[in-house]
Amino acid sequence: MEVRALVFDVFGTLVDWRSGVAAAFNAGGVPGDPEALADGWRARYAPILGEVLGGSRPWARLDELHDATLDDLLAEHGLDIEPATRSELVAAWHRLDPWPDVRPGLEALRRDRVVATLSNAHVAMLVDLARHGDLRFDALLSAELARTYKPAPEAYLTAARLLGLEPAEVMLVAAHPLDLAGARHAGLRSAFVDRPLEYGPGSPPRADPDADLSARDLLELAAAM
Amino acid sequence: MEVRALVFDVFGTLVDWRSGVAAAFNAGGVPGDPEALADGWRARYAPILGEVLGGSRPWARLDELHDATLDDLLAEHGLDIEPATRSELVAAWHRLDPWPDVRPGLEALRRDRVVATLSNAHVAMLVDLARHGDLRFDALLSAELARTYKPAPEAYLTAARLLGLEPAEVMLVAAHPLDLAGARHAGLRSAFVDRPLEYGPGSPPRADPDADLSARDLLELAAAM
Repeated sequence: MEVRALVFDVFGTLVDWRSGVAAAFNAGGVPGDPEALADGWRARYAPILGEVLGGSRPWARLDELHDATLDDLLAEHGLDIEPATRSELVAAWHRLDPWPDVRPGLEALRRDRVVATLSNAHVAMLVDLARHGDLRFDALLSAELARTYKPAPEAYLTAARLLGLEPAEVMLVAAHPLDLAGARHAGLRSAFVDRPLEYGPGSPPRADPDADLSARDLLELAAAM
Repeated sequence: MEVRALVFDVFGTLVDWRSGVAAAFNAGGVPGDPEALADGWRARYAPILGEVLGGSRPWARLDELHDATLDDLLAEHGLDIEPATRSELVAAWHRLDPWPDVRPGLEALRRDRVVATLSNAHVAMLVDLARHGDLRFDALLSAELARTYKPAPEAYLTAARLLGLEPAEVMLVAAHPLDLAGARHAGLRSAFVDRPLEYGPGSPPRADPDADLSARDLLELAAAM
């Protein structure tokens, strides 16, 4: 079955959340190492998604989850910051720069097939991120549209359904093996894109031997397809 | 309250369904006047939406409703056509040309605010229409995301919610007073765009004195904002 649509994970895969969030800690004058604070905030992401997926926390948009995990992070570091600074930090996740290959890579991939996001970010956040990075998608799809979060199967299946395609006609592109495994579990194809700087220069190496394709960036992916 | 997003009706407002559908009747070799057949098909649109909104027909994607109304149209005209021709006719609604001002108008309007569709077309159909016309939107929103049809309030409210905006921060742009009234009823702003050729050269004149803005095309709308 032919791949008719590519759906993209966003944080880490398309945009460099670490640099953008660290810059926001820096701009807000928050004491401490901005990169370490960004990493600490992001480390609270998977656990809080797990609470939602496990049913112990009601579904909420990512802004609200970021707000809650920021609370935890600040408490752990004994930091007390102004509400305006807090809001700016949560808003920083709406304006993260794309990796350099992303804009031309999406343009190349869009020629022959549909390209869409498939992110845990809610639609409004995706609008902001796409506008900030001048990224052109055919559609912004989000786990919000299924009121769940990846890697729950319904997030992937809802995306395929909205695109009017069979799951096997849709390929998830992501830098994260867990997300790719979730896509495969739901019947989608999967392409691993390496983002060796997602966690900064010392990022642990990643690979996904089960992915249908692996590429160093979106331009290499476009060439491989 | 500032207008932060414009959401666009699609059939008639952005794309010329009549010429495209008439061309498909012509290409399919269906006997009869192609424009009259297109008009007759479209005339069955509001009634079948009424059945869904009234609860006598379950919600279904527009492709399915087009399929059902095509059945009625063909039966009325005593026409019996091949399944492949039928499929082509239903698919014609996925590749309709935009009015000439639409591509540059959307580009101009996108500079200062979010632009999105808000159509009764399902998301997959909107992907096809936007790609066919090379139209750039920030998001494709559809009544499908609320599993209803305009002018039900939930169609408009879901769009505002997904954009993270108050209804009054969103303006519907449409050529159809009924749609604009539905938007206002849900708390949105409204802009009337005249499409004097929607039903061909003899289209009845339209206006909406209750709209916040009226314009002859999207470029005039961009200038007025």
